[in-house]
Amino acid sequence: MKIARFSTGHEPRYGIVQDGPGGAATSGESEGRILVLKGDPLLSAPEATGEVVDLADTRLLSPVIPRSKVVGFGRTYLEHVHEMGGQGTEDPVVFLKPNTAVIGPDAPIVLPAWSEEVHYEAELAVVIKTLAKDVPVERAQEVILGYTVANDVSARDRQRAEPQWVRAKAFDTSCPLGPWIEVPEPGGDFNPASAMVRARVDGRVVQEGSTRDLRVSIPELVSRASTIFTLLPGDVILTGTPAGVGEIRAGQRVEVEVEGIGAMSNPVLRR
Amino acid sequence: MKIARFSTGHEPRYGIVQDGPGGAATSGESEGRILVLKGDPLLSAPEATGEVVDLADTRLLSPVIPRSKVVGFGRTYLEHVHEMGGQGTEDPVVFLKPNTAVIGPDAPIVLPAWSEEVHYEAELAVVIKTLAKDVPVERAQEVILGYTVANDVSARDRQRAEPQWVRAKAFDTSCPLGPWIEVPEPGGDFNPASAMVRARVDGRVVQEGSTRDLRVSIPELVSRASTIFTLLPGDVILTGTPAGVGEIRAGQRVEVEVEGIGAMSNPVLRR
Repeated sequence: MKIARFSTGHEPRYGIVQDGPGGAATSGESEGRILVLKGDPLLSAPEATGEVVDLADTRLLSPVIPRSKVVGFGRTYLEHVHEMGGQGTEDPVVFLKPNTAVIGPDAPIVLPAWSEEVHYEAELAVVIKTLAKDVPVERAQEVILGYTVANDVSARDRQRAEPQWVRAKAFDTSCPLGPWIEVPEPGGDFNPASAMVRARVDGRVVQEGSTRDLRVSIPELVSRASTIFTLLPGDVILTGTPAGVGEIRAGQRVEVEVEGIGAMSNPVLRR
Repeated sequence: MKIARFSTGHEPRYGIVQDGPGGAATSGESEGRILVLKGDPLLSAPEATGEVVDLADTRLLSPVIPRSKVVGFGRTYLEHVHEMGGQGTEDPVVFLKPNTAVIGPDAPIVLPAWSEEVHYEAELAVVIKTLAKDVPVERAQEVILGYTVANDVSARDRQRAEPQWVRAKAFDTSCPLGPWIEVPEPGGDFNPASAMVRARVDGRVVQEGSTRDLRVSIPELVSRASTIFTLLPGDVILTGTPAGVGEIRAGQRVEVEVEGIGAMSNPVLRR
């Protein structure tokens, strides 16, 4: 089940995305429909209003605005550790993005004035369902609502120059999330532990990897995050990026995709 | 004007703290009174309900729970840079604490299981009033609601061991805020640029410094933060800690104070 947050010109609403006849719906594709829901599925069980809108007539929003935080993990894919000059013996790194960094599909990534080198990083993101602290790995699944796609936009020059990654990774528009939340259902075929993650710049595939290559499993990442902070419903965990990161420049459009969830693209601009 | 957030057993409310006959009210002192306000002074101008409660009959809460983030600055006092082994030529460092780290007066600081060395850090904290991005230094004052006292509780062993300070500084209970927000009034005598900052452990003064010694002014810190993120009403900026940091252990009580605002103390425990 795909839960989207969208606008048709007024207040944001939530809905269940239904694929068009051409197969999986994607952001920017016009074939799907949205079954409109009552309220916020993070707060109550999804209940249909009966209203159906065409995906083409809506503007998709980030499927969640965390009440508290986006927790990022870095160095979770060995090949990416190598491309960043690391040895691969390092533990995954934890960092934070505030909710002011979150944007949705098609919203512009605004390159900050103080960076000359901003990179895309396509990632699988986990959306937390329930308040969670010190969750054991074997129970981590119980606190996960579903999965979405993230672009962990990073000012690489500042990341190299400054000891803390806050400026590099937490600036406004540095966390596109979308196009919707995939809530795995019994018998469904989305497997977050074996999903292809891709980035495209102006339509060209520039990054591709599989979550099979995560050095630390998704339940383990959720569990580790919960040993540091209380996770709140709607908090998001970024699972790290595979090899193939690279620059985005003003005027380009960057798309991030996780197979089985969907794809989201954002224009890049400099103000 | 001192704006407190408090509970008398039910929902949190806001109020204006009036000093007792003995002088400045402090957390834990019984002489003051609170003039209860309607609603949230961050959202609307303070309006009295007419109800007055004795400070002694209330439980003070953190005066604000940020909707988005606590932005911390480190290395802002030269003597503290030196005590941490730095040269003093380094730029101040920016870090984040999520709202799940915030606690109020008298709430316990819970030492995390994964740290053996947790330090207090007394700090002046700035509370943001209005949405703010790229605020010039000379206009920073316009986006400040007021000032409160923070304890930037830090797991020093993890701070040394890990490149990113997230585990060290963002864990649950690592950000006591209180006892209330001092909103400077024309003709008032609180000057945030010249305020004594102190910490006491079990009543003994262990840290003392003046905001006169900040290497970067408060308006400059607000302006710098706003070049990275949009600041939202209720976001908090920690201005860094003077020299004299040290360990807190389970069973102790740590008090942080900024003269002219007030003092807040928290018990320390290990679960």
